[in-house]
Amino acid sequence: MRTFNNKTFTCVGINNTISIIRSKRFQIEKVLIIKGSKASKNKRLNNALNSINRGLIQKVSDKKLSSSFKTQGVSITFSGNLIFDEIPNFEKNDHMCLLVLDRLEDPQNFGQIIRTAECAGINGIIYSTHHSVPLNETVLQVSQGAFVNMEFYEVTNIKNELTKLKKNNFWIIGLENSANARPWYSIDYSGNTAIVFGSEGYGIRKKVLEACDFIATIPMQGSTNSLNVSAAISAVIFEKLRQNLEKNNAFDT
Amino acid sequence: MRTFNNKTFTCVGINNTISIIRSKRFQIEKVLIIKGSKASKNKRLNNALNSINRGLIQKVSDKKLSSSFKTQGVSITFSGNLIFDEIPNFEKNDHMCLLVLDRLEDPQNFGQIIRTAECAGINGIIYSTHHSVPLNETVLQVSQGAFVNMEFYEVTNIKNELTKLKKNNFWIIGLENSANARPWYSIDYSGNTAIVFGSEGYGIRKKVLEACDFIATIPMQGSTNSLNVSAAISAVIFEKLRQNLEKNNAFDT
Repeated sequence: MRTFNNKTFTCVGINNTISIIRSKRFQIEKVLIIKGSKASKNKRLNNALNSINRGLIQKVSDKKLSSSFKTQGVSITFSGNLIFDEIPNFEKNDHMCLLVLDRLEDPQNFGQIIRTAECAGINGIIYSTHHSVPLNETVLQVSQGAFVNMEFYEVTNIKNELTKLKKNNFWIIGLENSANARPWYSIDYSGNTAIVFGSEGYGIRKKVLEACDFIATIPMQGSTNSLNVSAAISAVIFEKLRQNLEKNNAFDT
Repeated sequence: MRTFNNKTFTCVGINNTISIIRSKRFQIEKVLIIKGSKASKNKRLNNALNSINRGLIQKVSDKKLSSSFKTQGVSITFSGNLIFDEIPNFEKNDHMCLLVLDRLEDPQNFGQIIRTAECAGINGIIYSTHHSVPLNETVLQVSQGAFVNMEFYEVTNIKNELTKLKKNNFWIIGLENSANARPWYSIDYSGNTAIVFGSEGYGIRKKVLEACDFIATIPMQGSTNSLNVSAAISAVIFEKLRQNLEKNNAFDT
């Protein structure tokens, strides 16, 4: 498995900067801090900065800076180890859960999905190189630092990857309205699962849908038929978590 | 019950315009359509427009218009009947579910929550006049027309309203991390329930929390502790829907 995309990203904000440094997952290229800003006096940030080479840290004045940077007071530029081009082999009993995004378009949605997925214990996100919003700086920013704890797999052909996952003991579940769709909570999400979600406007492509073992749906209760993809993902992956926790009696209730 | 806030709102977009007209809930003040735009040729829109007074419809050129209006090609101005200042009395067996937003700050979140709530069959949203994002045009726009099917109650004192709801056979559930919190799926959401969510940064205020019968939590599975409030609401209200549907055997599985 090699890193697919070793390009450089910049994020702003105290929490992002701390998360990125603490993850030890990336090569830190540069940290810019605005002189006299709140960030420059933040103890947690200064503790984190103590662990990197001081030559990478520059104090700057706030002239000619982007407004988001001005508000946050700190930006971090980093590279490497974020996106992979191949999904590793998993063991049958790994209880992995991967999200598959088929042509997601909106960077706000992608960022929110990363944040929700990290909170729900999702192990990785697969998305396609073509016709999808890339994992860009807007997406990383919206994820509020959650991306540092997520694996990303950028693939050229989603259907091929699903076929490989099936051979690797994964069940493939697609969320889509269709005549033979089952309610989302009637699916057993234990074991290795990959859950496929389609684009905001068009849903899952037919050929990708054909690779799914189950089709699940969330029946709409209102007059609109427009559950946001990020809200739908939240409903499904916390249902998966509910099943896990109930099975493991994780709580005394 | 009287309308609290009879002010005028403007929304853009074909779907919004159709939803607002079809709902027959509002007084339509004005519809502006850009000459030659896609909206001007849209059949569904033109059908909807046939049901209102033609004097309210103006065709305009695209000079001096806001960019969002230019993209969408149509805007609608309407008033009345959107926000109420008093929660009606419900019957014991109404199986009502209300969302209570304690000091929500972000209009994007508010709009997304309306959209998700409408899809999950929530009956109304309570929020406070003070220290909260108001139900403004940004919120309505983000909700993508879902607001026309939702009741909104803007109240001055959330704790007082919860006390009244309790007398009215409601169980009050607060979502908050706390030592005595139960997992979100172990709560019985049948009957009349009001589910309280706190602000993005600070959670539910102590005095509001004291009015809750149950405290529920979604245990975080990752390293970040920052589930977005709109994603948390999606997880909880679709768990409520799961319980309803399973109880009613709404699906043959």
